[in-house]
Amino acid sequence: MQDTPADPISVLVHHLSRLPGIGGKTATRLAYFLVRDPTLSKDLSDALRGTADTVGRCNACGDFTADEACSLCTDPKREAGVICVVERSQDLQAIERAGVFRGRYHILGGALSPLDGVGPDMLRVRELLDRLMEVEEVILATNPTVEGDATALYLARLLKPIGVRVSRIARGVSVGAELEYTDAGTIGRALEERREL
Amino acid sequence: MQDTPADPISVLVHHLSRLPGIGGKTATRLAYFLVRDPTLSKDLSDALRGTADTVGRCNACGDFTADEACSLCTDPKREAGVICVVERSQDLQAIERAGVFRGRYHILGGALSPLDGVGPDMLRVRELLDRLMEVEEVILATNPTVEGDATALYLARLLKPIGVRVSRIARGVSVGAELEYTDAGTIGRALEERREL
Repeated sequence: MQDTPADPISVLVHHLSRLPGIGGKTATRLAYFLVRDPTLSKDLSDALRGTADTVGRCNACGDFTADEACSLCTDPKREAGVICVVERSQDLQAIERAGVFRGRYHILGGALSPLDGVGPDMLRVRELLDRLMEVEEVILATNPTVEGDATALYLARLLKPIGVRVSRIARGVSVGAELEYTDAGTIGRALEERREL
Repeated sequence: MQDTPADPISVLVHHLSRLPGIGGKTATRLAYFLVRDPTLSKDLSDALRGTADTVGRCNACGDFTADEACSLCTDPKREAGVICVVERSQDLQAIERAGVFRGRYHILGGALSPLDGVGPDMLRVRELLDRLMEVEEVILATNPTVEGDATALYLARLLKPIGVRVSRIARGVSVGAELEYTDAGTIGRALEERREL
């Protein structure tokens, strides 16, 4: 097939292998599956065209949306006085699935990571500051990783002097988890952050 | 997000999760990667549209092709007298990569599998018979699995009375493999099918 580098299946394999976690073999397997299923190929083609053409960023929170502002930011039932800061859109959705938060969100677009060259100017920190005029509390829900913790610390030091209440989501043992199989770092945190009953 | 089931990202996640081996979490991860990369999204969309619109089956061998007949079947340098029978297009490509076979191919579209309800009528057996008029040898290169072996046996019994030479690819230890790490079934086969030097 070397003489036809532009054959449609090779092109499809090439583009599939650009996806994260999809190597050459998986890309080939997926491509042949798709070639045998033109309906799925067309559905997927249209869906990709749909997101590429319509999905942008919400002016306020920075989440993906097909509109100027996302449905959460324009929902009058959501409290405008509490902003939950997360690294990525997927984190927002994980919190929404929990169904306990009724405020609004702010997507940073990542976490501080000096080794990867990600400084505050590469995150949506300025956009967060621009939203604080009528905000009472900022909940820092960056991931409980070194980078997420550093980002939360950075934001806390930046926001506290402004006079806004700043909180960090609690770390502890997972609900339903067994201590026997919980890592030492998590157990240590759960003990440090224990609450009086 | 339950109130907007038609939002473009959810649609993309839905269609990605129809792919084999792609669960809900991987589909979500891929979708967000794609949303952040409109160029890849468009490339992939066009590639999928390309295969869905142009790729069909070669009239002769049954391989995927954008033309009436594939490049191998129309290549005058390939021997028309030898047909190598494989289960799937991927097998054809694996044999082509080895670079030792100069004949033509026939794609069965699978292997006999009574448990899955795959009988001879669901494979391209009739199409194989239709091609045998000027063929001297049929090499059965179905996979060395129970189904592949059963399919080879079935085809051998069907083709031998017609007067065509029928052969089966050799089973044995892999080139470059170490006996220590080779499974017993393969070592047994390699001993049974040993060749005098």
